[in-house]
Amino acid sequence: MSLDEFGLIERIRRRTAARADIVLGIGDDAALLQPAAGQQLVVTTDTLNSGVHFPAETPPADIGWKALAVNLSDLASMGAQPAWCSLSLSLPDASAQWVEQFAEGFFPLADLHGIALIGGDTTRGPLSISITAMGQVTAGQALRRDGAQVGDDIWVSGVPGEAGLALALWQQQALDVSRSAGDAALEHLRLRLARPTPRVELGLALQGVATAAVDVSDGLLADLGHICARSGVAADVLEAALPASPAADQAGLCKSFTTLRIGAGDDYELCFTAPPALRQVLHETMASVAVPLTRIGYIRAGTGVQVINQEGGVLVASRQGYNHFSSFGA
Amino acid sequence: MSLDEFGLIERIRRRTAARADIVLGIGDDAALLQPAAGQQLVVTTDTLNSGVHFPAETPPADIGWKALAVNLSDLASMGAQPAWCSLSLSLPDASAQWVEQFAEGFFPLADLHGIALIGGDTTRGPLSISITAMGQVTAGQALRRDGAQVGDDIWVSGVPGEAGLALALWQQQALDVSRSAGDAALEHLRLRLARPTPRVELGLALQGVATAAVDVSDGLLADLGHICARSGVAADVLEAALPASPAADQAGLCKSFTTLRIGAGDDYELCFTAPPALRQVLHETMASVAVPLTRIGYIRAGTGVQVINQEGGVLVASRQGYNHFSSFGA
Repeated sequence: MSLDEFGLIERIRRRTAARADIVLGIGDDAALLQPAAGQQLVVTTDTLNSGVHFPAETPPADIGWKALAVNLSDLASMGAQPAWCSLSLSLPDASAQWVEQFAEGFFPLADLHGIALIGGDTTRGPLSISITAMGQVTAGQALRRDGAQVGDDIWVSGVPGEAGLALALWQQQALDVSRSAGDAALEHLRLRLARPTPRVELGLALQGVATAAVDVSDGLLADLGHICARSGVAADVLEAALPASPAADQAGLCKSFTTLRIGAGDDYELCFTAPPALRQVLHETMASVAVPLTRIGYIRAGTGVQVINQEGGVLVASRQGYNHFSSFGA
Repeated sequence: MSLDEFGLIERIRRRTAARADIVLGIGDDAALLQPAAGQQLVVTTDTLNSGVHFPAETPPADIGWKALAVNLSDLASMGAQPAWCSLSLSLPDASAQWVEQFAEGFFPLADLHGIALIGGDTTRGPLSISITAMGQVTAGQALRRDGAQVGDDIWVSGVPGEAGLALALWQQQALDVSRSAGDAALEHLRLRLARPTPRVELGLALQGVATAAVDVSDGLLADLGHICARSGVAADVLEAALPASPAADQAGLCKSFTTLRIGAGDDYELCFTAPPALRQVLHETMASVAVPLTRIGYIRAGTGVQVINQEGGVLVASRQGYNHFSSFGA
């Protein structure tokens, strides 16, 4: 089934949520929005290209979820409340079925976080999804990369590395990303890659607690390296403290996981720093947002990030973990 | 010359303008912005794909100008003051030279309108430029598509059709879009296609004057059709009143121009409606913003848009001029 682009647009338009702060949504030259008094605006843009950021055979619903999730993750790492987003969809041909399936992944996640689609465009071209997400945060309360202090603990949510393990399995043709895996452990890993969970509630709960935060999009060491570079500090990560993956254990993939958990990206967990005095607060946060938080190391004076093994030796040292980054601040 | 993506990003980052309302610009997970009190936010997204929205041989500087211009035009048609933008750049390979040339078109236009680049990303893929532009407008003052009243005059800025004429000449291999044309008339036409002028000052001046406005991106009839559809009215355009193109005359292309001026897009002029009582005000506006404004018809009860020829006959009638549109409101 193929529709003209107007039909595609109408299909997207009628699915979006209502918000009282949308003065004028889809249907004019631009959207008209009413920012809340006393709030700052948080804006991020991330683009996913087929074959570069996801395997070409990824189901459209998973693409819809993930394209929004990676943007929500950036809002989460700033401690922002999601509000509005625009979507630029480049499609090789106007397929109503593709757009319907994309919407089946996109809108449930949007609704979960109260973010409304307020505009965008569809163009003809190779499959590419660019989203600009906007959120709000009370002035002065945003989580930034530049506030880590010497002596702070380093924390991470969830289990970084599982998405990278799923990607490695796909590259080895040991995992089909186009459908559910029969095995429970493999299916858990597939979903970490296909349907990452943006840690929005955690980001909001970290306001006034975390001194710095970043989302783990390019790998734990690389992203922690951002915090260190911007804060003018160094980080020691304790290998023994890194979260284990029960799914990797069950699938007999512990060895692969050991390296992936510090280097692989695409998990969209939050890595943040906080003073040791707030450990109890963070245990309460963990319970209230129902996301596992693990203390993995500490901030010290110096530059770079290193991983210390159980014998106290330096396993990996990275002075600059961010050269390959493609995002420039949004 | 080829650089890693970090190098590309740095090249863009250091060119962007400073604004006091940018709390945190490029360099964190998201930008942090301080909206002005009493203002509403105006947000638009437009994507240009190589070979679809511009000829592949278009110089990067012209692409940089135009990608921003089409977004500024949407802000202009809402009567908004430009503030911030994000840029998602998909490039086949990391070429510093390409990015430098793109920046030579992008930043002079950005600086002209005080719009600052606050984030975005670069990805590897077929050449595509997606921009989300944000502006501000005093609450209740935005120009919308839905306010046209029966009896209003219809006005248009500049000379719609000249960009379409340049595109037609390129398609006939009568114009090289990759360099300046020797002939002054042809060069004028080439620049209307390559370097459209977003009518930002005009949009601001139309606050409290225009009852409805739209930018002419898809053709005068199609875009006027948007105003009619959203306002629940009809439009009569008088063929004899349409702006002439001295450049088309000089190039001996009057006949082609006659049809292109009502159907061709890409001019980014503003089409708007206003009560006849404000004609004198609009003549003063024309002088103050130094943009030609032409009264081309009137709004009547009914539906659709028609063009009336000199004998009073209906030249073209369109009940729905917008089926082929790709933009859904931003």
